[in-house]
Amino acid sequence: MGNTFGHLFRVTTFGESHGGGVGVVIDGCPPQLEISAEEIQVELDRRRPGQSKITTPRKEADQCEILSGVFQGQTLGTPISILVKNKDTRPQDYSEMVQMYRPSHADATYDAKYGIRNYQGGGRSSARETIGRVAAGAIAKKILHQVGGVEIIGYVKRIKDLEGEVDAQTVTLEQVESNIVRCPDAECAERMIELIEQVGRDGNSIGGVVECVARNVPKGLGEPVFDKLEADIAKGVMSLPASKGFEIGSGFAGTLLTGIEHNDEFYTDEQGNIRTVTNRSGGIQGGISNGENIIIRVAFKPTATIRKEQNTVTKTGEAGVLAAKGRHDPCVLPRAVPMVEAMVALVLCDHLLRFQGQCKVL
Amino acid sequence: MGNTFGHLFRVTTFGESHGGGVGVVIDGCPPQLEISAEEIQVELDRRRPGQSKITTPRKEADQCEILSGVFQGQTLGTPISILVKNKDTRPQDYSEMVQMYRPSHADATYDAKYGIRNYQGGGRSSARETIGRVAAGAIAKKILHQVGGVEIIGYVKRIKDLEGEVDAQTVTLEQVESNIVRCPDAECAERMIELIEQVGRDGNSIGGVVECVARNVPKGLGEPVFDKLEADIAKGVMSLPASKGFEIGSGFAGTLLTGIEHNDEFYTDEQGNIRTVTNRSGGIQGGISNGENIIIRVAFKPTATIRKEQNTVTKTGEAGVLAAKGRHDPCVLPRAVPMVEAMVALVLCDHLLRFQGQCKVL
Amino acid sequence: MGNTFGHLFRVTTFGESHGGGVGVVIDGCPPQLEISAEEIQVELDRRRPGQSKITTPRKEADQCEILSGVFQGQTLGTPISILVKNKDTRPQDYSEMVQMYRPSHADATYDAKYGIRNYQGGGRSSARETIGRVAAGAIAKKILHQVGGVEIIGYVKRIKDLEGEVDAQTVTLEQVESNIVRCPDAECAERMIELIEQVGRDGNSIGGVVECVARNVPKGLGEPVFDKLEADIAKGVMSLPASKGFEIGSGFAGTLLTGIEHNDEFYTDEQGNIRTVTNRSGGIQGGISNGENIIIRVAFKPTATIRKEQNTVTKTGEAGVLAAKGRHDPCVLPRAVPMVEAMVALVLCDHLLRFQGQCKVL
Amino acid sequence: MGNTFGHLFRVTTFGESHGGGVGVVIDGCPPQLEISAEEIQVELDRRRPGQSKITTPRKEADQCEILSGVFQGQTLGTPISILVKNKDTRPQDYSEMVQMYRPSHADATYDAKYGIRNYQGGGRSSARETIGRVAAGAIAKKILHQVGGVEIIGYVKRIKDLEGEVDAQTVTLEQVESNIVRCPDAECAERMIELIEQVGRDGNSIGGVVECVARNVPKGLGEPVFDKLEADIAKGVMSLPASKGFEIGSGFAGTLLTGIEHNDEFYTDEQGNIRTVTNRSGGIQGGISNGENIIIRVAFKPTATIRKEQNTVTKTGEAGVLAAKGRHDPCVLPRAVPMVEAMVALVLCDHLLRFQGQCKVL
Repeated sequence: MGNTFGHLFRVTTFGESHGGGVGVVIDGCPPQLEISAEEIQVELDRRRPGQSKITTPRKEADQCEILSGVFQGQTLGTPISILVKNKDTRPQDYSEMVQMYRPSHADATYDAKYGIRNYQGGGRSSARETIGRVAAGAIAKKILHQVGGVEIIGYVKRIKDLEGEVDAQTVTLEQVESNIVRCPDAECAERMIELIEQVGRDGNSIGGVVECVARNVPKGLGEPVFDKLEADIAKGVMSLPASKGFEIGSGFAGTLLTGIEHNDEFYTDEQGNIRTVTNRSGGIQGGISNGENIIIRVAFKPTATIRKEQNTVTKTGEAGVLAAKGRHDPCVLPRAVPMVEAMVALVLCDHLLRFQGQCKVL
Repeated sequence: MGNTFGHLFRVTTFGESHGGGVGVVIDGCPPQLEISAEEIQVELDRRRPGQSKITTPRKEADQCEILSGVFQGQTLGTPISILVKNKDTRPQDYSEMVQMYRPSHADATYDAKYGIRNYQGGGRSSARETIGRVAAGAIAKKILHQVGGVEIIGYVKRIKDLEGEVDAQTVTLEQVESNIVRCPDAECAERMIELIEQVGRDGNSIGGVVECVARNVPKGLGEPVFDKLEADIAKGVMSLPASKGFEIGSGFAGTLLTGIEHNDEFYTDEQGNIRTVTNRSGGIQGGISNGENIIIRVAFKPTATIRKEQNTVTKTGEAGVLAAKGRHDPCVLPRAVPMVEAMVALVLCDHLLRFQGQCKVL
Repeated sequence: MGNTFGHLFRVTTFGESHGGGVGVVIDGCPPQLEISAEEIQVELDRRRPGQSKITTPRKEADQCEILSGVFQGQTLGTPISILVKNKDTRPQDYSEMVQMYRPSHADATYDAKYGIRNYQGGGRSSARETIGRVAAGAIAKKILHQVGGVEIIGYVKRIKDLEGEVDAQTVTLEQVESNIVRCPDAECAERMIELIEQVGRDGNSIGGVVECVARNVPKGLGEPVFDKLEADIAKGVMSLPASKGFEIGSGFAGTLLTGIEHNDEFYTDEQGNIRTVTNRSGGIQGGISNGENIIIRVAFKPTATIRKEQNTVTKTGEAGVLAAKGRHDPCVLPRAVPMVEAMVALVLCDHLLRFQGQCKVL
Repeated sequence: MGNTFGHLFRVTTFGESHGGGVGVVIDGCPPQLEISAEEIQVELDRRRPGQSKITTPRKEADQCEILSGVFQGQTLGTPISILVKNKDTRPQDYSEMVQMYRPSHADATYDAKYGIRNYQGGGRSSARETIGRVAAGAIAKKILHQVGGVEIIGYVKRIKDLEGEVDAQTVTLEQVESNIVRCPDAECAERMIELIEQVGRDGNSIGGVVECVARNVPKGLGEPVFDKLEADIAKGVMSLPASKGFEIGSGFAGTLLTGIEHNDEFYTDEQGNIRTVTNRSGGIQGGISNGENIIIRVAFKPTATIRKEQNTVTKTGEAGVLAAKGRHDPCVLPRAVPMVEAMVALVLCDHLLRFQGQCKVL
């Protein structure tokens, strides 16, 4: 259960890190959207391990194949299924994991829940599962862009205590992609890369914060009660591996302000649009988009896989010591950027269709 | 849309702050649970405005009535509907709100979405909607308590910059309820109350952080991918009015640690249970409960309704000035405690039923 | 579980035949629809027992009250909750039912499933539950009528072996309502009424077939695979009490034709619309409406409650004899007509919103 | 939308008849079930065209591949994805279908809905989509069999006006599979085969009725209101291509009986089980299984594809004449048997998990 996301734009992912492959079925994509495997591949390449010297060295080609739902370059309105076959299988590397529970991984909880798990590379709990999300997100982004020019841009805001300065109003994809750590503050990015490399050499890992902005979002998306737009986004990003916190707009810092300092006053701009002077709401009020930029932040913990020795136990409870072999991924943040963007895109696209379905009928 | 929460334990709320009433339909409650309107009322009274000198003075009795699903004191397995009739209706108070958009409220976004809104007291966006959630949460809590003695305890952790010291392992409901601000750190609670009263006299408002712990949660609850336990909890609490941020376990602070500092090592306790030495994971690993305490925090912004003058516009975009009349609620945190508990209970109860349905069949 | 119907136009019913009341929450109704309790009451009165000499004599006023979701005569886009309080409670009548399982009722299966049941008047299994459906159906009908003038007309086609002649293309609501058995074939209606009265005097009951036509349905409603339009309609009507069979278009009789006799040839009409010469498909092809009349039939068994003596057992398995006391409802068909119409309307309305949400976005 | 079926045992199919392939993702399968591609293949071979002289001659190997969710021969509790690649693609055969709407096919409605369609072999509306259903059904059957020995057996009851005599209480899979028409009445089967061959030579087609029995179903499955067991089964089988009618137990014929003739009296058997003397209810009362055999019937129209000439129009409305080229499938009934069984199995399995999740918790 729980492998489907969305109500009208429904995304179901499948696959373990080892086995036949990982993929996604997208049900509810509007018909006649032009889409190609190449466009989807662009996003998958941003998510892919081994794309730069600071990420995990697993070289996964992650070539996607569209199995259904697209005909002569256009969506049919039928389910789009996308498959990425697994390649980099090294069963010998996982012999220790059959017995030992890796600290802060999902090994023990999978056993508690299912009484069985695919111990190869994390199985279903592997970050490899996010391939399906990113592929679906690429399609959602395209729909959103065609309807009103919605732009969704994520970037690394902070690595450990190194925080970049980024203007969410103006930041571009080019700036984000201009360095391998995906922090548009070039000077800070260099120090981040240095830190990641040092931590990686040390066999350790670090985390940080990804910020994501959605611009040109139409007013009216989101539902007032349980499916508030920020609630669905929170669920989406908190379902990403290694995420530990979420905030929108002023977030936790907003709790230090008083009401008069925090409230966003309204004004009418020159085009006659009702706008807010400030945007501490983060583009959402009462669960519904107000047309201002949606700005969120997601905290990612340091990667659990490290080469340092850690105490742990086996499935039967016997004590042991474990350390990851070979190279590891010292910081997941650069690769988490397209994942966060994908989840924001999936939520916005789903609510765009809902809005159209509920409010544009009579 | 979006007024239903949960998959097997399904909660649908309805009602505006003014009109016939607010309520909830709970579908999927197991049969033969003993439950009474009185038990539910206890939780509603914790949520109720006017319960103490530091909350909003609206005196709402909020008496609940069980309309269906309970027979001779026991649940039938059929939908439980609970209704709280509206009483405190003062239409004259809302005349200004017909025209003026209240800053950081949902007035403008409702108009953008629906082209119509009940402008009396916030309508559906009123915190009064949470009555249904808290009523349903009372039932979920009882189910959870009967199955393994799960305890869910929320409390005010911080008001503005005043942070209490609370031991999540041992804190009791009695300690929480021992003062009107619901902060179990008695000394800090006094300063919080003082601050809230001062801010209230000033016509201003403040926010803070609610922390919530769930103890004795069985291992194995939560789904590995989109419906991770923390993702569903995040959605639940981020759908509460005024919430701006969520974290679990180490949260945002965890991003300042390295992997070796952050990972929770495993050990086997004297009863032979596999446990973690530390609990930076916050009781959930890979989206599934690991038997340790689930600990979350929710940031609530300062209440939007204040008596200070603010610039705003009318529905047609003309500039104006607005200030709330009469008394207001300077700090929502004490009343948010039962709301947070309710959302955590709803998520845990839903996943308990799912676990039973999926994993205990063969 | 299972008390919610629909995906975008979501209807949740609640309530037992005895207890606080029965009702419905409708989530997803488009905003700004003009609706009143009076309009809904019209449909409820068609469903109501005691409306004529041939139905059950229970005099239930069944006055509905709109508790939420409507403001100044218009829908808000928020959940519409409608309540009908229970009145006609005669607990003494049900003393025997505490012990004895009524043949072909749900007493035994409720006990098997839940281990508890409200034995008063059938509890949740009472046809009284359909009040919520009919109320929601009234709203769905209005939406459908505003969008393209969709008309949904049901009528009694057959009572036992008395079959009326009705032209589905032209039949009007007035013709249906012109007699108490709701068969537009006036001559046959008289014989039907006579038969029902005779069977009723005898303490026995009879069933029959309701036919329902939906005219002016837009092309394109329905989903090609599991949520085919006829599949959702089948589910809807087969969830009505006492229904035993469903067919669309040619139905079971169509299995006696060959392909060349059965296929509906296409032609282009004078307005340039693509039409079918015949309509054995019943207005749906490949699960999607084709613009022709949707025609379905539903078989209802003879009512289970009869005044004749029947052998049965108690909850603990001891043999006994049971006969209903007082008067009974010898034929449910006339009252089933608005129920069938309601279910067809709910399905069409849901698919109308889905179509708008999925196919009208780009 | 609409490509997912089930609530806890969730099946999502994908794929067009031409393109990369067709398949299914099953979310919610309990862990630790032993399952192999070979077991699934057995059911796919029963569904496969070209399996005998009386079905369509398209030789499709339809070899399935399990891509995920199974590890070392056991289910993991994670999504099971199964893929059947497409092979028999003859694009040249479909040139006429680009322009011409085939009578009683989905060509015209797909165009009306989506404005685009894969005109090769029916695309998504092809019966090839049912491969995913049958594969998922094989797994559902195995779960049901392990829990209480549930047996689901379908067979051809009638072809046009040739009706077999079959005892639903005792019929075996071996009897069904003993002839190519899948009618356990051997003598009638011969006449059916003869008729199908004759109709096929004539370029025409015929339909009929499939009956399906589920034995040893536990009491208590099904939900009392919208998700009545028979309602979900009705939806399942009415979503199969070419189905036009559904009945359970006494069905349409039951409407000719009176209440005293129709009601199923209760008795207690020698083992102390509460049973019914007759089974006109068809194993379900009040939407919930009562432990008696569940018996349903499904009407399938004559196959729409025939080699006879038919009048039709093009996409732009111009008149034309169409006749299928090459050989065709004169009767879908034998291949519909495993499809019906699969849908019944999916519904029962889903409700088994629901029952466990809702009623076996406290």
